Amino acid sequence: LMEANDKKIRIAIDAMGGDYAPQEIVQGAVEAAKKDNNLELILVGPFDILEKELAKYDISGLPIHRAHADDFIREEENPALAVYRKPNSSIVVATKMVRAGRADGLLGATATGSLVTSAMQFLGMLDGIERPVLGAVLSLIAPTTVTLDLGVNMDCKPRHLLNFAIIGTVYARVLLGVPEPKVALLNIGKEGVKGNQLIRETYPLLEKSGLNFIGNVEGHEILSRKANVIVCDGFVGNPIFKFSESVGNIIDNYIKSKFKDDPEVSCLLGDKLEDLIGLLALPDVVGGGILWGVDGVVAKAHGNSRAPMVTKRLGQTKMAIERDVVGCLKAELSRIRKNVNL
Amino acid sequence: LMEANDKKIRIAIDAMGGDYAPQEIVQGAVEAAKKDNNLELILVGPFDILEKELAKYDISGLPIHRAHADDFIREEENPALAVYRKPNSSIVVATKMVRAGRADGLLGATATGSLVTSAMQFLGMLDGIERPVLGAVLSLIAPTTVTLDLGVNMDCKPRHLLNFAIIGTVYARVLLGVPEPKVALLNIGKEGVKGNQLIRETYPLLEKSGLNFIGNVEGHEILSRKANVIVCDGFVGNPIFKFSESVGNIIDNYIKSKFKDDPEVSCLLGDKLEDLIGLLALPDVVGGGILWGVDGVVAKAHGNSRAPMVTKRLGQTKMAIERDVVGCLKAELSRIRKNVNL
Repeated sequence: LMEANDKKIRIAIDAMGGDYAPQEIVQGAVEAAKKDNNLELILVGPFDILEKELAKYDISGLPIHRAHADDFIREEENPALAVYRKPNSSIVVATKMVRAGRADGLLGATATGSLVTSAMQFLGMLDGIERPVLGAVLSLIAPTTVTLDLGVNMDCKPRHLLNFAIIGTVYARVLLGVPEPKVALLNIGKEGVKGNQLIRETYPLLEKSGLNFIGNVEGHEILSRKANVIVCDGFVGNPIFKFSESVGNIIDNYIKSKFKDDPEVSCLLGDKLEDLIGLLALPDVVGGGILWGVDGVVAKAHGNSRAPMVTKRLGQTKMAIERDVVGCLKAELSRIRKNVNL
Repeated sequence: LMEANDKKIRIAIDAMGGDYAPQEIVQGAVEAAKKDNNLELILVGPFDILEKELAKYDISGLPIHRAHADDFIREEENPALAVYRKPNSSIVVATKMVRAGRADGLLGATATGSLVTSAMQFLGMLDGIERPVLGAVLSLIAPTTVTLDLGVNMDCKPRHLLNFAIIGTVYARVLLGVPEPKVALLNIGKEGVKGNQLIRETYPLLEKSGLNFIGNVEGHEILSRKANVIVCDGFVGNPIFKFSESVGNIIDNYIKSKFKDDPEVSCLLGDKLEDLIGLLALPDVVGGGILWGVDGVVAKAHGNSRAPMVTKRLGQTKMAIERDVVGCLKAELSRIRKNVNL
């Protein structure tokens, strides 16, 4: 009755990464395998720890495997250096499984520094991209707008922002369903001459890139749907991303404390309040955690992810693999290379 | 019955600056003079235009004066260059009145570039500050937190961020009533070693400055009340400021469209909804428009200000004059100069 194994999407999971590892990571994986029988999951970590966690669930018949890793990276370690110091750590073993073709992709709630370093070291970067990039849809107010980079890259050069524009174009096209994504630079004014030196130098590069570049957007236009791809240095994108998330949480808490306690109000407004909260909550959009630019699908879950989030991220990682985000990005890079040096 | 004239606060107003100049500017000034009999207002612009606008109101007995300026700067001009090209423009004439001691301060809904250039040129900068700085309280969620710079300064050096920290300290102490303002750097992580090159170089400078420096805050902590002064490059502060304002507007519109049309809902929730909107609306906090660092009180109203906003800004400009923001900043600069070079 089962489909043949070779049609399944195989995802390696760093079972030891994240604030609630291994318990919530393993639980989330078990739930995902139960829900989606096209997933094949490989939990990576010390065998004994994995065995103890898996013993909590009935996984008979589920395609959940274990891959042994002697060691793992602890919270107090330098996340990047630890990757070099611990070749048998769970994140390194998981990354090498992707490189060896034993997994189609990787998910970790691992510290960003460790995930990025391991991916760069063992999968390598795509030709023309220097460092991995993280992007996200900030709000359902603008559900087809991705903002990037969100904090991996800082002190950027114009070529890095060009990278973000290319990656964002593929992100919006492949994962958000926008055929011709409109690309904009985040700036402090409308005109191309405004902004800091980085933006002024990037502007002409985007103009000749062959991307669908529409010019500058300002902060108040991030959620206006004018652009599908909003390009900025990670040092700008990171606080906007976190600020946006915090405003959503503040409104959520405010509404819970002021409205929901009142049964009359709650009954009258139920759905509308949920809609308002939903608009501002960080959306669980496909690809939110993809580490773009490395030669393989590497997905990051938030360090504080609990089981349901792990399950959700596994579904999203699977979709990124199915839609071949890496292949699509390679194709876009070679298309853009005809117009500008990468 | 009137107080002696010399006790009044005299504010020069660029009657020709702003999207709705001169009509709404003049109207806002007339309203302010009616409300507050300690204000003395000097409208600056072409006499005939001012006369025509003032003829609409009964200003008999009100301390509203006119100062003639032949010319004014048009929207399509380069805002900075126009200041040099038009020595008889309303903003230049108004600024020179402050320099000459004929006004205690200046308010303009003038383009930022023109206001900044005119202030730098004719009032000069305080010793140790290179360029003017704009700060604001972003939300009543954190009513004693000022974020700066908001867009005047970009490609900053560490000494500029030190300037913002000093100015923010005076802002929070004098205008927000915080005795010992806590100063933080906006960064992408908690630790001092994180961030871009600018932040890493600024961190030790703030540590030895003698300011009440508490380290880094991240984007989601801007509204957490951890810090009273949040320091960032204008290229980071500007999109956060505008993004924050846009989220407030989006929620305002959403609530208006979804809740207020329903009389039952509106009746039940009235005040609570207003509170929610108010939390996220850009607060009209004292000093929101002060151009810090120039040797005189120069206040900026938003270009799209209508009469009630002009009236409000005049009250705030008056308070900044009364509380001697420029004198307080000079004192703080000389205190900090004992610890670090400015």
